[in-house]
Amino acid sequence: MAQPLQALRHDNGVLWALDQTLLPWNERWLELHDAQGVADAIKRLSIRGAPLIGVAAGYGVALELAVDQNPDSLRRACDLLASARPTAVNLAYAVGRVADAAASYQPGPERAAAALDEARAIERQEIASSDALATRGAELLSSLGVRRVLTHCNTGALAAPGRGTALAPIAELHARGELELVLAAETRPLLQGARLTAYELGHLGIEHAVIVDGAAAGLIARGEVDAVVLGCDRVAANGDVANKVGTYGHALAARAAQIPFVVVGPCSTIDPRTPSGAEIVIEERDPWEVATVPSEPSGARFSIVPGATRCLNPAFDVTPAELVTALVTERGVAAPVDRAGVTGLLADASTVR
Amino acid sequence: MAQPLQALRHDNGVLWALDQTLLPWNERWLELHDAQGVADAIKRLSIRGAPLIGVAAGYGVALELAVDQNPDSLRRACDLLASARPTAVNLAYAVGRVADAAASYQPGPERAAAALDEARAIERQEIASSDALATRGAELLSSLGVRRVLTHCNTGALAAPGRGTALAPIAELHARGELELVLAAETRPLLQGARLTAYELGHLGIEHAVIVDGAAAGLIARGEVDAVVLGCDRVAANGDVANKVGTYGHALAARAAQIPFVVVGPCSTIDPRTPSGAEIVIEERDPWEVATVPSEPSGARFSIVPGATRCLNPAFDVTPAELVTALVTERGVAAPVDRAGVTGLLADASTVR
Repeated sequence: MAQPLQALRHDNGVLWALDQTLLPWNERWLELHDAQGVADAIKRLSIRGAPLIGVAAGYGVALELAVDQNPDSLRRACDLLASARPTAVNLAYAVGRVADAAASYQPGPERAAAALDEARAIERQEIASSDALATRGAELLSSLGVRRVLTHCNTGALAAPGRGTALAPIAELHARGELELVLAAETRPLLQGARLTAYELGHLGIEHAVIVDGAAAGLIARGEVDAVVLGCDRVAANGDVANKVGTYGHALAARAAQIPFVVVGPCSTIDPRTPSGAEIVIEERDPWEVATVPSEPSGARFSIVPGATRCLNPAFDVTPAELVTALVTERGVAAPVDRAGVTGLLADASTVR
Repeated sequence: MAQPLQALRHDNGVLWALDQTLLPWNERWLELHDAQGVADAIKRLSIRGAPLIGVAAGYGVALELAVDQNPDSLRRACDLLASARPTAVNLAYAVGRVADAAASYQPGPERAAAALDEARAIERQEIASSDALATRGAELLSSLGVRRVLTHCNTGALAAPGRGTALAPIAELHARGELELVLAAETRPLLQGARLTAYELGHLGIEHAVIVDGAAAGLIARGEVDAVVLGCDRVAANGDVANKVGTYGHALAARAAQIPFVVVGPCSTIDPRTPSGAEIVIEERDPWEVATVPSEPSGARFSIVPGATRCLNPAFDVTPAELVTALVTERGVAAPVDRAGVTGLLADASTVR
């Protein structure tokens, strides 16, 4: 099996992050020294994927505490990091967890060390989660006889420490010799499917093809897909799933064709305080992302709309629980229509949150 | 009301065509002299939209007859034109009609003149169709209280002579002061929505915004759209609709949100010889269209996928009749689930075919 990619590396007071806005054209590493740098990298999607931004934000708090332990600075740093992306719940969670761990120590080197230890612990837990998602998800897909998968956005090692979230069981199914093909929806506007998932699938030696997002429903209807398998940015208590824009359309197509629609994510993406999808804040990102496409290996972009044209850019959509066949977490698989099934995964609060 | 655009102009033995691959960046006219030139322009989508390619192909036959009346050359020219795009039924229809009109004359200038007259007649009929579509469609939308429309691909004056097909009633609703907003789905891979529909809507002074294709379902679910209104490339006898890839997904979202899904097209797109959508040939276009995005005003493109990545590019999908609220034609409005309703529109064969 090919070595998984690694998108983040903390080393000696520096957080190194593979700049995902430049893939697949350039493999450039960002050198981040403080919370501001990490928050900026998260905001412009150089670091992305719910679990990965959680881990990066945790390190962001630790980096900040290593250089400035003033309580006001720390509060500002935490706010900055927690608000870098509004939809992912584990971002605020990781920031709070690292800040809390530090708060039980007096100012000084021990406090900084405690923060760093906590950030590392979050990363280790996400890696363990990824391994568990791989195994549980692959077992589910295998039991369903799934050989041809459609996925959306990027949910591999570039999105989550370890093997990723939804891409982890897909890679595991491949390792077991049961995978035939992955269709990667390109995922406009930022093309994480075309740029990043294709990059990872190539790295893993997995047979794949990229399609435009609009082609998914027709290919599913024609019987060319056995299951839709993708990640989640936030799961509400009732099992509604917020994920990258385009997800809901794939769910409708899967339901119409009666194929499984499988959502994979760590329990850290389940938010018991959000009753349903209706309460999930949908991030409206810069319209410029829609108005443009990448035009150079540098990541420079070219406008595809007339000058005066306005664009809307909701970054996520909400898939109602009743369209989700299974929610695969590191703790088990739930059928989201069963509300107790989703929040029940959080019952043993000591393991992850 | 702003003057509609004109995408084709026959003048003194030359067919002038606005090169739609270069819009909105460049307004360049192609000068076409023979069937080969017209077929090439249709193939690479410089001329596109089912009614417009039908009219262009009709002129292509006439151009050919003006320079070469050898029966073998003519047959080759007709084959070339009719096969330039496999999905649109009116392409072969227009070619056959012009060739048949010519065949009733002896070789010579009269034959060429008859062909040109027939091509012009097809164009005039499409313009009259467009006007009828505008009126009938606007009346339907008005009666449904529609003020915010989502559309896909391009169905305006760049796609059909006159005011277009689906964009004609939208423009008419605007002229009546009843239209609030058009959401134009960008329509990857070739971005006809972002490039062409936005260009036309701007020209018409219609309030609009471009969205990525994947955002449509979520926006519809959030109640931001009153109706989906789009065109068709071929309608089967049972009312199934083949249209630009991405259409079927919009239909599923409209059904889930219980808003009207309205298909607009001239009767020339209804194909009574195709029993259902299952028999419609779906054109698989060059994967390079998916692998790339425009990167320069010249229309040059930039690759967005890793070098070794394969892409699939089905250009159309099929929406089952039961998801179509209404099929608006120049002769009337049918509910496609009623099979007789669709083919019944063709009963008076003298008017259009």
